[in-house]
Amino acid sequence: MLNKLLVAVSIILNLVLTIHILYNNNSTTWNPTWTNRAAAEAEAAASVPCSGHGRAYVDGLGVLDSHKPPCECNNCYTGQDCSVLLKDCPVDADSGDPLFLEPFWMRKAEESAVVESGWHRMSYRYYKLGAFVSVELEMIIRELHSIMGNAVTDNRFIVFGTGATQLIAASVHALSQTNSSYPSRLVTSVPYYNMYKQQAEFFNSADLMFEGDASAWKQCDNITQVIEIVTSPNNPDGKLKCAVLDGPNVKTIHDCAYYWPYFSPIIQPVDEDLSLFSLSKTTGHAGSRFGWALVKDEAVYKKMNTYISLSTMGVSRDTQLHALQLLKVVIGDRGDEIFHFGYRTMKKRWEKLNKIMSMSTRFSLETIKPEYCNYFKKVRDFTPSYAWVKCERLEDTNCYEIFKAAKITGRGGEAFGSGRRFVRLSLIRSQDDFDQLIAMLKKFVSKEAVVVVESI
Amino acid sequence: MLNKLLVAVSIILNLVLTIHILYNNNSTTWNPTWTNRAAAEAEAAASVPCSGHGRAYVDGLGVLDSHKPPCECNNCYTGQDCSVLLKDCPVDADSGDPLFLEPFWMRKAEESAVVESGWHRMSYRYYKLGAFVSVELEMIIRELHSIMGNAVTDNRFIVFGTGATQLIAASVHALSQTNSSYPSRLVTSVPYYNMYKQQAEFFNSADLMFEGDASAWKQCDNITQVIEIVTSPNNPDGKLKCAVLDGPNVKTIHDCAYYWPYFSPIIQPVDEDLSLFSLSKTTGHAGSRFGWALVKDEAVYKKMNTYISLSTMGVSRDTQLHALQLLKVVIGDRGDEIFHFGYRTMKKRWEKLNKIMSMSTRFSLETIKPEYCNYFKKVRDFTPSYAWVKCERLEDTNCYEIFKAAKITGRGGEAFGSGRRFVRLSLIRSQDDFDQLIAMLKKFVSKEAVVVVESI
Repeated sequence: MLNKLLVAVSIILNLVLTIHILYNNNSTTWNPTWTNRAAAEAEAAASVPCSGHGRAYVDGLGVLDSHKPPCECNNCYTGQDCSVLLKDCPVDADSGDPLFLEPFWMRKAEESAVVESGWHRMSYRYYKLGAFVSVELEMIIRELHSIMGNAVTDNRFIVFGTGATQLIAASVHALSQTNSSYPSRLVTSVPYYNMYKQQAEFFNSADLMFEGDASAWKQCDNITQVIEIVTSPNNPDGKLKCAVLDGPNVKTIHDCAYYWPYFSPIIQPVDEDLSLFSLSKTTGHAGSRFGWALVKDEAVYKKMNTYISLSTMGVSRDTQLHALQLLKVVIGDRGDEIFHFGYRTMKKRWEKLNKIMSMSTRFSLETIKPEYCNYFKKVRDFTPSYAWVKCERLEDTNCYEIFKAAKITGRGGEAFGSGRRFVRLSLIRSQDDFDQLIAMLKKFVSKEAVVVVESI
Repeated sequence: MLNKLLVAVSIILNLVLTIHILYNNNSTTWNPTWTNRAAAEAEAAASVPCSGHGRAYVDGLGVLDSHKPPCECNNCYTGQDCSVLLKDCPVDADSGDPLFLEPFWMRKAEESAVVESGWHRMSYRYYKLGAFVSVELEMIIRELHSIMGNAVTDNRFIVFGTGATQLIAASVHALSQTNSSYPSRLVTSVPYYNMYKQQAEFFNSADLMFEGDASAWKQCDNITQVIEIVTSPNNPDGKLKCAVLDGPNVKTIHDCAYYWPYFSPIIQPVDEDLSLFSLSKTTGHAGSRFGWALVKDEAVYKKMNTYISLSTMGVSRDTQLHALQLLKVVIGDRGDEIFHFGYRTMKKRWEKLNKIMSMSTRFSLETIKPEYCNYFKKVRDFTPSYAWVKCERLEDTNCYEIFKAAKITGRGGEAFGSGRRFVRLSLIRSQDDFDQLIAMLKKFVSKEAVVVVESI
């Protein structure tokens, strides 16, 4: 009897185990093959915690030797796992590194990952006899603008650039190609993004001359060959801007890199001859070097494309692949999650900053009146990328140096064509950078109160 | 007895099955999590066969709508699965699309794949306060040159560019920055790569003038402010070249894009002030837009870096990640597999071409004397990227048009500063392109024989 039971149990167990094995082999789980190594490597890097104050990348320092990606610590953090906060460490509020969006992409790990094969688009051109641009990427950019309502793309050509940086150069070059023997004049409004001036002066084209502030040319009748760059929202001060000059001899470039709901209400779609956008300020991927221009005139479009071809033969296909995947995630829910996340982050940061600055009489910030945002469907504050700070005391002639002495590195007003009374502080960097900025500002401003008390 | 045997067998079977299950669960197989979606997508695209005459990519046309990447067929193939060969279809032998290396990368699928996370290096800069360049990528480039023996990297700075294209512009710009009020003269040897002239004329810098053939300046004493570009091996004719001009007022740029064992014996390492290389002709990834310059002088290095910064703020981090992975595979076996594969391919292609051309009196190819190759450790033929074909008949004044009429699109000699007697045919394209070229050439040359016979 016991024997029979034993046999029965054993046979049942045999069946159960066999079914288990068969079921697992027949399951619909997909078995990675050639992507396995790369996937394991990426997940290994991603799983290094770096105490939340750093990041390990598959192409980190030393991976060629050890295969172990090390932590690259955020500013002011150190140690192998970035757990040590340096005391009295200088705060970096200089560049517009858009890392405030990094937490969003970490949350979207699965949706945003891309596997690039070793043979991915080795050719110079997309498709048979095609161009340097991915048609799908162009389509998704049009869709994004239509969802956001921040730019009209109908009847517009799209030019891709290695960052908006390259597109500034390409568009200025295209518009400066006149038949005149005199160079075109490039102007913009103070305060302005320094890149316009730097490029024009460094590339030193015989067809172009940087002439500074646009308003200086307002009184001139019969101005010819003027190219005005309008940055709206403006870098550094975040304001929405209009062209200062107009007339048949004025050509205008609209740099709309910051015209996203993170930073500004979307008042109406940009509907201009030539406007520029940047992935850096759309998804936060400054490192990918991708931007695009919306161009009405076919001749200008062709000239810009020639510029991009002769300069870099288009934009890296690796970059275009990555950008496509990122924008797929963005439009997946019609921008809902990323733009709400980004705006919430900026709003919180501005609230903290305003609270501190309101305690100061030494430093001031201009406020911009709230406006109705067509994307969020409500009246909202401006939450610009940068704080454009003015030093109000007579003796504070160099605002940059004053902040520098207080261990806050911003960007001096001179770089923007303004006086030294101004300094730009970046608010779109990583949370660590921002937290350090706020802590240091608090200290700085509270000292001011002490000084005031002492001087009474 | 039978019962006992049954129990024994059953227990043994149970043990085997249990061990099997335990072993499989405890195996070191890694379970993908967030990379799963991207990996499945990549493998799905890679598994579309396209009849061997096309490729499906994850960012292919229509993927936004259908999620199914379509076949992108090679030239002259059509149909949903690229199985239909078009009859009498014109052959494309124009651009230097280096797809002859694609089969190598497909074979190296696992080693060369990269997973890029959505948050990969979003910052403008590598590492804390770092530059626009991956230190690991710089290291592996130095290692590659040391293995190949094709360039000295000691005491050289490395500048990264968005393709060698951007580095040509950057190096010419850097060397043209003199204190003189006269522009520098840019010269090179005929036949030359057209990009040099096109860039100089299109960017129209006040500091530079393209002056054509270098040898025209050889007789001039006291020449000043001359920049000579030496392309070696030369594009289009594949010859190793030396500078024509020298002296204290001559600056030289060595474009060494083709100095790899695929195309030329490696005679000695390039040991010059400024030399340029391109990933396109190293691994075959033209689409990635990556190149590098080896620069001796620190001042020139800094000027080139400023150019790259103001032009594109460095090279895409997506591209640098991809390039690092590809070069890891290349140096994994000290270049053994890829360079042997590539050279074998080129050698076979040249053998087929030479066989056909030897039957022609109408067209000629210059031969280059074999030389000892320090990499392959043997005397070997030159196997250039391009066939530089001369039309020998008096009446054949436009060689490009003659080939065009025979349904072969090359690149006309005029583009290289040579006469119309020449046409350049690309030999580094896909196997399909090459096979079609050979088939069409055979037809073309055999007609020549018929004509000869008829005219007797």
